[in-house]
Amino acid sequence: MQVIKSIEKMAAFSKKAITQNKVLGFVPTMGYLHEGHLSLVKKAKKECDLVIISIFVNPAQFGPKEDLAAYPRDFRRDLKLLGPLKPDVVFKPDPSAVYPGDYHTYVQIEGGLTKKLCGSFRPAHFKGVTTIVAKLFNIVRPDKAYFGQKDAQQCVVIKKMVKDLNFPVEVIALPTVREKDGLALSSRNTYLTPEERKKAPVLYKTLRLAEKMILTGERNCAKVEQAMKKNLALVKGLEIQYAVVVDAGSLERKKIVSGNVLLALAVKLGATRLIDNIIMEL
Amino acid sequence: MQVIKSIEKMAAFSKKAITQNKVLGFVPTMGYLHEGHLSLVKKAKKECDLVIISIFVNPAQFGPKEDLAAYPRDFRRDLKLLGPLKPDVVFKPDPSAVYPGDYHTYVQIEGGLTKKLCGSFRPAHFKGVTTIVAKLFNIVRPDKAYFGQKDAQQCVVIKKMVKDLNFPVEVIALPTVREKDGLALSSRNTYLTPEERKKAPVLYKTLRLAEKMILTGERNCAKVEQAMKKNLALVKGLEIQYAVVVDAGSLERKKIVSGNVLLALAVKLGATRLIDNIIMEL
Repeated sequence: MQVIKSIEKMAAFSKKAITQNKVLGFVPTMGYLHEGHLSLVKKAKKECDLVIISIFVNPAQFGPKEDLAAYPRDFRRDLKLLGPLKPDVVFKPDPSAVYPGDYHTYVQIEGGLTKKLCGSFRPAHFKGVTTIVAKLFNIVRPDKAYFGQKDAQQCVVIKKMVKDLNFPVEVIALPTVREKDGLALSSRNTYLTPEERKKAPVLYKTLRLAEKMILTGERNCAKVEQAMKKNLALVKGLEIQYAVVVDAGSLERKKIVSGNVLLALAVKLGATRLIDNIIMEL
Repeated sequence: MQVIKSIEKMAAFSKKAITQNKVLGFVPTMGYLHEGHLSLVKKAKKECDLVIISIFVNPAQFGPKEDLAAYPRDFRRDLKLLGPLKPDVVFKPDPSAVYPGDYHTYVQIEGGLTKKLCGSFRPAHFKGVTTIVAKLFNIVRPDKAYFGQKDAQQCVVIKKMVKDLNFPVEVIALPTVREKDGLALSSRNTYLTPEERKKAPVLYKTLRLAEKMILTGERNCAKVEQAMKKNLALVKGLEIQYAVVVDAGSLERKKIVSGNVLLALAVKLGATRLIDNIIMEL
């Protein structure tokens, strides 16, 4: 496992690997790794000849009032967690090299996809995501890139960018990894106070409640959404951002539950924003 | 020389070539080829193992009132001109495959670079250019890409996009090819009436006049610009869009002629928009 900090060295590594006909797997992360990230690395190790994991807290995807400065960082801890998995490269570029002072180019999906759900609460977020992922794809030049399904909208957005811009990359979304009580793993869980942590499993419980409603025959999206909101509202100090049933491909709101649906939630627990989701294939 | 129309086949060709460690040269064009394009293909042939030329009239870079429908197209003629140069692939994708109905992703340079000069007269033009070039780079995956210096701002914009988005591509700008009377070759010259064609060499003559002023000691940009405008104004039916002395790297206006400067013109001769430029290194 080698650590590469220079963009030029990373690009040179990948160029060499490509001309040697290696299958490159790529796991882009913002670090402060948890078992969710590690599951992506493990899958990449199984499917690829070489695995590159990037650790970069991307300023472009944080709003001016968001938690860029507070976002947890611990590179030593990350390396310790990665060691046993034996990825080939940990790529940790410097923010000033990724976005030099005269930086001006952005990749953006226009229209609804990036404006809905999380996008309506984080207006420039997905523009930052598509831009950094495009940059990392150009540097690392992977054949396959692995993302966590916890960030459901991010997965849809990146697949759309890859398709529209013809990136020669296969995007693979892997299941959300959870704590025993159901809480989806997230680097941001570290923000939770002990009291908030006790309340946090309500997200997954609410999703399972909605899933059960649908599995037992409910097809009215509004009723499912009402039930989710009602369940979340029982928790003091929890603010609902959205609780919806949408088409898993387009993220469009639905009236009737049918096809592939995404049950998705975003809430604030105190100062911490948490998201979670379930995909159902009907 | 093979013609490839499918994006998937083009991508597969390039993937194979890359794993064989071939140096790929790429000449993106809108077709209706002239000696300017051919000079790019010749250079690419000298410098690369495989040469791919694309022919695609890119709707995204035309404004709603511009000449997309009228833009000259003659694929048979293009193939005849290319034949003797023996490029490996002529890539001619279908517009509906490049921009399917649900297309939504754009690459854009924000800030001044795309708003100045041609950008101030063609507001969405460079967004269309950066988007199609990004897409073509992802499909063709060239090592080197060749552009004509006649489109000076396009060269600067593409170099900026490549740098900002970390495309693993070397962008090479080659000198403008001219008619004997100095008119820069352009597919749009075909629009000119015989009378307009007689007037058209005034662009290059004006640039040479400005160059001469600078070579003989003039350093006041405003004076050089005034002289260019005065010379262009002598031609009836010619409308000046801009006639400027700018920094060749940033395209910023200058007061004093120094460093690398771009002398650049855009005019309308009747219904036809013509551009030309000279770069001077002082």
